[in-house]
Amino acid sequence: MKTIKNIAVLTSGGDAPGMNAGIRAVVRAGIYNGLNVFGVKRGYDGLVNGEIVPMDAKSVANIIQRGGTILKTARSDEFRTYEGRKKAFENIQKLEIDALVVIGGDGTFTGASKFIEEFDIPIIGMPGTIDNDLAGTDFTIGYDTAINTVVDAVDKIRDTAESHDRLFVVEVMGRDSGLIALRSGISTGAEAVLIPEIKVDYDAIMKRLDKTRKNKASRIIIVAEGDKEGGIVVADKIKENFPHYDVRLSILGHIQRGGRPTCMDRVLASRLGVASVEGLIAGRRGEMAGLICGEVQFTPFKKAIKHLDDINENLTRIVEILSL
Amino acid sequence: MKTIKNIAVLTSGGDAPGMNAGIRAVVRAGIYNGLNVFGVKRGYDGLVNGEIVPMDAKSVANIIQRGGTILKTARSDEFRTYEGRKKAFENIQKLEIDALVVIGGDGTFTGASKFIEEFDIPIIGMPGTIDNDLAGTDFTIGYDTAINTVVDAVDKIRDTAESHDRLFVVEVMGRDSGLIALRSGISTGAEAVLIPEIKVDYDAIMKRLDKTRKNKASRIIIVAEGDKEGGIVVADKIKENFPHYDVRLSILGHIQRGGRPTCMDRVLASRLGVASVEGLIAGRRGEMAGLICGEVQFTPFKKAIKHLDDINENLTRIVEILSL
Amino acid sequence: MKTIKNIAVLTSGGDAPGMNAGIRAVVRAGIYNGLNVFGVKRGYDGLVNGEIVPMDAKSVANIIQRGGTILKTARSDEFRTYEGRKKAFENIQKLEIDALVVIGGDGTFTGASKFIEEFDIPIIGMPGTIDNDLAGTDFTIGYDTAINTVVDAVDKIRDTAESHDRLFVVEVMGRDSGLIALRSGISTGAEAVLIPEIKVDYDAIMKRLDKTRKNKASRIIIVAEGDKEGGIVVADKIKENFPHYDVRLSILGHIQRGGRPTCMDRVLASRLGVASVEGLIAGRRGEMAGLICGEVQFTPFKKAIKHLDDINENLTRIVEILSL
Amino acid sequence: MKTIKNIAVLTSGGDAPGMNAGIRAVVRAGIYNGLNVFGVKRGYDGLVNGEIVPMDAKSVANIIQRGGTILKTARSDEFRTYEGRKKAFENIQKLEIDALVVIGGDGTFTGASKFIEEFDIPIIGMPGTIDNDLAGTDFTIGYDTAINTVVDAVDKIRDTAESHDRLFVVEVMGRDSGLIALRSGISTGAEAVLIPEIKVDYDAIMKRLDKTRKNKASRIIIVAEGDKEGGIVVADKIKENFPHYDVRLSILGHIQRGGRPTCMDRVLASRLGVASVEGLIAGRRGEMAGLICGEVQFTPFKKAIKHLDDINENLTRIVEILSL
Repeated sequence: MKTIKNIAVLTSGGDAPGMNAGIRAVVRAGIYNGLNVFGVKRGYDGLVNGEIVPMDAKSVANIIQRGGTILKTARSDEFRTYEGRKKAFENIQKLEIDALVVIGGDGTFTGASKFIEEFDIPIIGMPGTIDNDLAGTDFTIGYDTAINTVVDAVDKIRDTAESHDRLFVVEVMGRDSGLIALRSGISTGAEAVLIPEIKVDYDAIMKRLDKTRKNKASRIIIVAEGDKEGGIVVADKIKENFPHYDVRLSILGHIQRGGRPTCMDRVLASRLGVASVEGLIAGRRGEMAGLICGEVQFTPFKKAIKHLDDINENLTRIVEILSL
Repeated sequence: MKTIKNIAVLTSGGDAPGMNAGIRAVVRAGIYNGLNVFGVKRGYDGLVNGEIVPMDAKSVANIIQRGGTILKTARSDEFRTYEGRKKAFENIQKLEIDALVVIGGDGTFTGASKFIEEFDIPIIGMPGTIDNDLAGTDFTIGYDTAINTVVDAVDKIRDTAESHDRLFVVEVMGRDSGLIALRSGISTGAEAVLIPEIKVDYDAIMKRLDKTRKNKASRIIIVAEGDKEGGIVVADKIKENFPHYDVRLSILGHIQRGGRPTCMDRVLASRLGVASVEGLIAGRRGEMAGLICGEVQFTPFKKAIKHLDDINENLTRIVEILSL
Repeated sequence: MKTIKNIAVLTSGGDAPGMNAGIRAVVRAGIYNGLNVFGVKRGYDGLVNGEIVPMDAKSVANIIQRGGTILKTARSDEFRTYEGRKKAFENIQKLEIDALVVIGGDGTFTGASKFIEEFDIPIIGMPGTIDNDLAGTDFTIGYDTAINTVVDAVDKIRDTAESHDRLFVVEVMGRDSGLIALRSGISTGAEAVLIPEIKVDYDAIMKRLDKTRKNKASRIIIVAEGDKEGGIVVADKIKENFPHYDVRLSILGHIQRGGRPTCMDRVLASRLGVASVEGLIAGRRGEMAGLICGEVQFTPFKKAIKHLDDINENLTRIVEILSL
Repeated sequence: MKTIKNIAVLTSGGDAPGMNAGIRAVVRAGIYNGLNVFGVKRGYDGLVNGEIVPMDAKSVANIIQRGGTILKTARSDEFRTYEGRKKAFENIQKLEIDALVVIGGDGTFTGASKFIEEFDIPIIGMPGTIDNDLAGTDFTIGYDTAINTVVDAVDKIRDTAESHDRLFVVEVMGRDSGLIALRSGISTGAEAVLIPEIKVDYDAIMKRLDKTRKNKASRIIIVAEGDKEGGIVVADKIKENFPHYDVRLSILGHIQRGGRPTCMDRVLASRLGVASVEGLIAGRRGEMAGLICGEVQFTPFKKAIKHLDDINENLTRIVEILSL
């Protein structure tokens, strides 16, 4: 095992709140451990194009509280080709970078796996995505902030729904995963939550809406964007079935990605950043650092990206019980 | 002039943050002045249907910090007919209600004007709408909260725009008025603001976007929904003209209505609520209480609803100067 | 085992955000399971004085987003006496209440244990306290909101500290526990965190402050109120040692208790509320429902209140590594 | 009149949210008008010590949303001496800086007046202070953000006060001015507001507290720090008079200075920044740019700092009326 002296960190895929806290942790833990740390701009694209800059402790001062990523992020078509990855490796060699920390989601880790295979470079991953759709960590960096943004938005919509006795269909993010929908649904007292993992039973929903009519003036239905139906279709179906309802649709969209990270996301990113650097020094590679039951755990990339649709049954039950 | 002993308050039109502060102020100022105060549910609809309840000081405790309206609001088709208004008047007579305070926008005041004409009942209006589109007041109740909600959302979007070097088109509320767009645009450093009052000059926008390319990685264009083009059309046009841009659209929608009112909206609603009651006692009617240059002023309904498109030239200039 | 038909819920001890979500969950899960649910006002005091009201599904509508507790809370001297508890039991018998859910902290569970012993009444507890100082649950209801409030406040203080090159000592809540201090310290990039569990090493702190001088203009030191020294003493000591520093003290105080609960606190309270009711129905008693590694677990009261000072070593290490 | 080619901007006195928006506006309006713009670090101190850096459009990108001031601020003892001001002038001459924009409060403008007198340099001021204690502008930059921070904090305290039936004394900023106290008091439904401009009538307060007992479980009394009595004394007096009350004190302190500026503060700072630059170009000097009734107005420094204690009588009346 080669001794690690120089490392680089990058963020890739969609931006997520807490990525900056993660970058800061990697940079400072690196320096604390006597390493030189570089920052790569625009994810793998910057690796291919040689956009790599030295980072010192001060370069990450006062970023822990900011959304987005100071290193920027992008999806790189070139890195998907062997030629691209070769150029990336050459840039790394030029700067004598011994190892990488990559912060992102499944696409990021798939790319990293390939890069390790072909060029034998140690890489540790950190789960940075609002979708919480990775195995090997209880929560991904950015998820807690995103669901709080959703809750904040839906609380506002509830004010209007209550004032007008309206039914709102609110579409939230989550292409393959209903986790944002489910937790924000419970938190906002949603009358129903539609997620990609579970086939929608419109009859049941309509019955429940009818049954709860006397308890609640307003109704909120949360729909994950990944749901085949999508917010627009769901809103139309409800209008059809309840022509007397004043139905409105709200697609929360891009506001779910940004914003100051929550305490949980900052702590998570800080812990995993330190663990990633210490993992590399200890000889780890090809693994994602995650937090399981409060403890740092490392999971091979191939396993981390195989998120199972194991929606917590208890959470779906709770939506039903509490939407009385 | 008949002595006023019993008054009622209602909220009408779209809900706006600060309406509860307004209701609270009317109820407490009424009681403070020895009046009995009633609350009418669901705007003019509740007047027609006799949904009128007595309010005491406690009934409005701890509502000043809440969005929406505890009295609820609705658009009443029945009140638009003479028969509806007659029923409303009979309900008022039954409870010996001498005067009304109505909180809402131009539709609310148009209805009130008709009601006064036909049934000779004193009514004072309070400007409750997020659109800030009424003459006779510098700001309407709800406007300050709404623009802060927009600013908060666009700040979040800016994080993502910066991280991905993207251009975002953000559609905000304002059917006939660009005021939400204009102030939130200045506040978020938007590169362009498109409003219904001013014909869009795409050439100028495209030139400015080109010119500022070196200073800013991200770009935000704010579009008022009222703009004939609308956010979708604008986004498409920019994509056409800048095929190399990563253009995204975000329609903020209903989150702009709700939420805890800002300090300014609470103070405004509180002052106007007290002024409305004192105005009624002093014999005023058919007027809207507003705040102009820090002082309460009363403006006849007919004048208040004639909002001129007098977009502050300085504000549009400032968008251009600062989007360098 | 007697079949449970009627239950009551109360909140006790200091208020915590999420208590309302917990009350709502108990009431609705009770109704969902065919029970009658009562609410007790002002904690054990209301039990002693018979302030017990029936709750229906509507009575808890739209409270999930609110801080504090609609049932109110108090510390009851009378319930600490046998006479008081006897009166409480008689009130319970009068209404044929078969079981209780109590939401609070260690004092609440100590009282409950005594009550069970003497009067053989089934009670399940829910951990409602911002201090996170109970065994048997990874987090208590209110803790996540409180630390986010602290982080929000310290972010604001950081703005001023940065602008003036100042050192701020910030005192946060936590009489016996440094958990609020530790997590908020990591999240705000605090240069040092002083907690009751660990003896303060001023020399080390002074050295670290000196060492990091070139990287950071501002410095934040978080002190848990429980620390023997307290914020005032710490600030004085630093002033003595660093006479050239512009040292300021901020005691966050009571703002840490209130506010809209975060998503995590709402989900936690909702899950534990449902679990508590189902636990009572299943014959459980004398236990606290908690969430450990994402799953509901029941822990005997006697064990739950024996919170060990097992401060996560990793967290204290991380403060040091990242405050470079 | 000399043509202005190079200008510099600085922030001085206590930091205020919106100062960054003001810096950005000065820099970009300068560049827009063909000027070179410099930034001075640490207020007048940086002028004395020559900490002056060139600013381009990009240097102020993405700062509009941040609290504090990127130029930092300080109170300069040296600038209070003639020698200090002479050194400052020499530094200005060296860089051929023709004019200054200074953002701050009365101390800032007093220094500027002296500097103009002695060295004949054009200076325009911008009102940057949370205290809103300057004549010549309806609101100062930072005031709106500060009062919203106070309102947010007191809303949280209200949750606890309601839950425990407590009386809270909350001390807010405002050494010579009760404006923060007054507006935040109205906005939070405070039962009483104590300000330096008005002698405290304890008898009246005690009577009002007694009278409103049946309507409100909780009570909030807002005290401006400038009040001779101060929060601690007030809390003690109330405890004496109402021994049965559970009285608590909360001193909000430094959290009131920082934070993301509100929309209003950003627009205000943006407008005044543009106006300051245009004012200098038009030959103005020795004046503060302010916003009066929505229009930019210039007021001589000597007049701007003579803030009269003209507390709006209406606001104090409203506290009393609405605290029923």
